[in-house]
Amino acid sequence: MTATTDRPGTRMAREIAEQPDVLARLLSDGTDEARTIADAIRRRAPRFVLLAARGTSDHAAIYAKYAIEIGLGLPAGLASPSTLTAYGARPDLRDVLVVAVSQSGGSPDLVETVTVARECGATTLAVTNAPASELAAAADLHLDVRAGVETAVAATKTYTAELLGLWLVVESLRGGDLAAAQAVPDAVAGLVARADEVATVASRFRFVDRLVLTGRGFSYPTALEGALKLMETSYVAAHAFSGADLLHGPLAMIDADHPVLAVVPDGVGAAAMEPVLARLRQRGADLTVVGGEQAIAYATVGMRLDHGLPEPLSPLADIVPLQQLALTLAVARGLDPDRPRGLSKITETW
Amino acid sequence: MTATTDRPGTRMAREIAEQPDVLARLLSDGTDEARTIADAIRRRAPRFVLLAARGTSDHAAIYAKYAIEIGLGLPAGLASPSTLTAYGARPDLRDVLVVAVSQSGGSPDLVETVTVARECGATTLAVTNAPASELAAAADLHLDVRAGVETAVAATKTYTAELLGLWLVVESLRGGDLAAAQAVPDAVAGLVARADEVATVASRFRFVDRLVLTGRGFSYPTALEGALKLMETSYVAAHAFSGADLLHGPLAMIDADHPVLAVVPDGVGAAAMEPVLARLRQRGADLTVVGGEQAIAYATVGMRLDHGLPEPLSPLADIVPLQQLALTLAVARGLDPDRPRGLSKITETW
Repeated sequence: MTATTDRPGTRMAREIAEQPDVLARLLSDGTDEARTIADAIRRRAPRFVLLAARGTSDHAAIYAKYAIEIGLGLPAGLASPSTLTAYGARPDLRDVLVVAVSQSGGSPDLVETVTVARECGATTLAVTNAPASELAAAADLHLDVRAGVETAVAATKTYTAELLGLWLVVESLRGGDLAAAQAVPDAVAGLVARADEVATVASRFRFVDRLVLTGRGFSYPTALEGALKLMETSYVAAHAFSGADLLHGPLAMIDADHPVLAVVPDGVGAAAMEPVLARLRQRGADLTVVGGEQAIAYATVGMRLDHGLPEPLSPLADIVPLQQLALTLAVARGLDPDRPRGLSKITETW
Repeated sequence: MTATTDRPGTRMAREIAEQPDVLARLLSDGTDEARTIADAIRRRAPRFVLLAARGTSDHAAIYAKYAIEIGLGLPAGLASPSTLTAYGARPDLRDVLVVAVSQSGGSPDLVETVTVARECGATTLAVTNAPASELAAAADLHLDVRAGVETAVAATKTYTAELLGLWLVVESLRGGDLAAAQAVPDAVAGLVARADEVATVASRFRFVDRLVLTGRGFSYPTALEGALKLMETSYVAAHAFSGADLLHGPLAMIDADHPVLAVVPDGVGAAAMEPVLARLRQRGADLTVVGGEQAIAYATVGMRLDHGLPEPLSPLADIVPLQQLALTLAVARGLDPDRPRGLSKITETW
């Protein structure tokens, strides 16, 4: 490895930029696999979906929860792995689809969750970037998101690949038109090319110690994942709330000196965010909006999203400026986002 | 109203102190109601549970999720109200129990969630402190937690009453011994009396701008609710993570200058927290532990929980020092925890 590749953030920057190719590859090579998985799930006719994941993959799981509830009309929930592992619960999971999402497929608590869920009667699907992993082997079904090796500790391309993989399965189950996703790689490339605009936003946050992110519906996982990137790489106390939850208490800690970043692409979620943006403005908040024109009207600083993707696909592109924000801010602070302190690429939890 | 009752935090302090009486009243007057509700639920034989709530009540819902999954072996998930309201999803909810938790019973999105869930075939239960509320009327079943009028904006006694109400219903469904809860009011009173010890902890946090809270299993909702109290009343950026999630990224933002507060009463959750406490210590974190002796061995500062309650009842008492911490810190900062800026008692969200 040369000195050049060791410059802080080189890996993360490269993996952010790889995303259009990664997504195009998953579309061309993974669509049949997603359809086969959807057929197998359909035959089991699940009534309820439980999603199990940690960290970045947990945000992909929350995205899937919205896609499943809204797109399929199936109630879905996030599993608390500790109930099956530490507490030894053995629920009746017949008619339940358990979906585990993990880049590495290596976290012992997820492997145990899938193993126990299968014993309890669930149909199990693992979505990973590691087809030879224990998690892939433990599940009935496996979708490989084909993102290639990810070397930065802060996950980027595996996140968007997980989102697309989950969308392909859900959309296949829904009998929708998978061609809608063909526009995603270009939309992502368009945002990757706008790093300069992100740098302007990042410069205002250079000395920020805490930051609130918010979004609603399909944009809530984007806010959560953006916050995690900022925590991991820039050590900012970045805290994401759904727009509605923000009004139930956390609003009190927001004033003009503690900024808010809202993710508000056009769509149903944006309409539901308007009262939240109005309240933030009324409170005198310093508000950065990454989103559509109407939402930007409430903002101190805005970055326009104009990729034109339908709302369920929007999160695959909208995360890009937040990944770049985390990268840019970390480098500006003299940190190396490729090697955050205290973290390693595979986190083992029990 | 006299000037005395207007001293900052008077209401919150009074309502924290009322909790032993509130819980004793719910035990004596509400147990039959909980049993009747459990009988009605048993006849419907739900296969899954969805919980819907916001703010403080959302933490009671997360507590219920653990109690239901571990105690009843029923898979449970948190509903995302926006999927039914903003996005108009109409899932198949036959065999599903939907539990809405709300102090006021007045939030339009919860009323709509319960109304839609009922139309979609769910059995619906509202747990509120407002039997005449719209939410109580919208649901098939209603449990009144009988906490009396709560006047401080920061909810305290309605939270512990919601926890006890949910425990009574779950324990009745489980066919357990409701007498186990008789020890709760005294355990809570014992902690209310230890405000001096909390003041020592609070003095170290006097100038803290951000704080991480953590807990696992049954203690995770306690960490979440403690964080919300601190955000609402002291405007601290208090961020709660389950112990496992903390290791997946957020750990990077923790150093000796950014304190961590862990809630670790003895039990299964405490054993699962040991690797997390060890990692925090290894990172040089300033760690305050509210919990058992083994966990306190990892701490910079410890407050011993010795109420002896079984793990599923422990959260009803463990929240008390965190309520007092929020109150004490807010008053020390010259704020009025009874009237946080930007908030009102009923938050309307859609």
